[in-house]
Amino acid sequence: MKTKLSYAPSIRRLPSYLHIIRAFQRTGDPYISGTWIANELNLEPIQVRKDLAITGIAGKPKKGYPVEQLIAAIEHYLAWDVEQRAAIVGAGNLGSALIGYQEFRNHGLHIVAAFDNDLSKVGRSIHQVQVYGMEELKAVIEKMNITLAILTVPSPYAQSSCDAIVAAGIRAIWNFTNVKLKVPEDVLVQREDLSSGYAILSVMMRMRSKEVS
Amino acid sequence: MKTKLSYAPSIRRLPSYLHIIRAFQRTGDPYISGTWIANELNLEPIQVRKDLAITGIAGKPKKGYPVEQLIAAIEHYLAWDVEQRAAIVGAGNLGSALIGYQEFRNHGLHIVAAFDNDLSKVGRSIHQVQVYGMEELKAVIEKMNITLAILTVPSPYAQSSCDAIVAAGIRAIWNFTNVKLKVPEDVLVQREDLSSGYAILSVMMRMRSKEVS
Repeated sequence: MKTKLSYAPSIRRLPSYLHIIRAFQRTGDPYISGTWIANELNLEPIQVRKDLAITGIAGKPKKGYPVEQLIAAIEHYLAWDVEQRAAIVGAGNLGSALIGYQEFRNHGLHIVAAFDNDLSKVGRSIHQVQVYGMEELKAVIEKMNITLAILTVPSPYAQSSCDAIVAAGIRAIWNFTNVKLKVPEDVLVQREDLSSGYAILSVMMRMRSKEVS
Repeated sequence: MKTKLSYAPSIRRLPSYLHIIRAFQRTGDPYISGTWIANELNLEPIQVRKDLAITGIAGKPKKGYPVEQLIAAIEHYLAWDVEQRAAIVGAGNLGSALIGYQEFRNHGLHIVAAFDNDLSKVGRSIHQVQVYGMEELKAVIEKMNITLAILTVPSPYAQSSCDAIVAAGIRAIWNFTNVKLKVPEDVLVQREDLSSGYAILSVMMRMRSKEVS
């Protein structure tokens, strides 16, 4: 499924907005200025206004944005105000790290089960989340109302695991492998590429070394 | 340091280009078409041409891009053709996952040491990488010519660990915590926010459920 997201760069920034606005909320001030947000995140104020506008909220002249409504608008736009039940497929180091990643809870993302084909892991728990065998995928997904799979298996197992996930009825996959998965039209796949962030950092380091020399 | 990267979205995509072009290279065909790349990555052909143009390479009409030169141009632009020696600071699940992440090796990124303040981890090895105590940071970084720190400590330890990293002479930090680090002007920080990818996925899932209903 190709759901076009023309606002993708803005959507990617919304979690950072949410994070600093929530921190600001603790000051008790009912309004937050777009310029202050821009400074905190090293963005231009006009960019901040445009990014926040996609959530349907507008700031008031001189006052700024009402903090509580702003948080609610961002959470609603991101659908982070509804619970999303997810399963980790591949309970190795990365899978375990994601199960323990506290931030996800703040975003409505509940990892409720993990799957692995390593019998030494099956039956154990990782941060209170139980590890099941791959052959239990369909039964557990149905029983626990899981709607999202987070794929963290080694790359050679990526497509076969993906096929099992789709066969189990899941229609959204967050893919942490470097494999371009083949899925039916109605299955959403979001690939997470840790190399992308490193690409930015690497180019900045190269530019800096040229500035210095 | 604010090194402006106006090409950031293009740079983020370059690792995906590199990945599929390397796979294509195994076919033995000396030229690769921009349209084929576009189809593989669900991008518009014009976008592919613009993205690849930042590396200084241009395709030939009807033939496409020369595969070997294209790979070399991307790797050179990303500075992935030089070795980068890095340390993991925080040898928990996420740090361990990154040490074991094979892709990084293809990008010149060599994680050569890990640091933790947990004495039960110090002295042990993770995927052949030794874990040192935090008090050894400066000595090991100098001895091993480490120029990049990958910060994977729990958030409450983020700023103090960052201060120790900076004091040890590191000028580039890849920050996997959700803390906005305070650093001197000449230190580069790239924050990796796992929530950004989830934001995109979450919005796509919300849009789809509206289409269906």
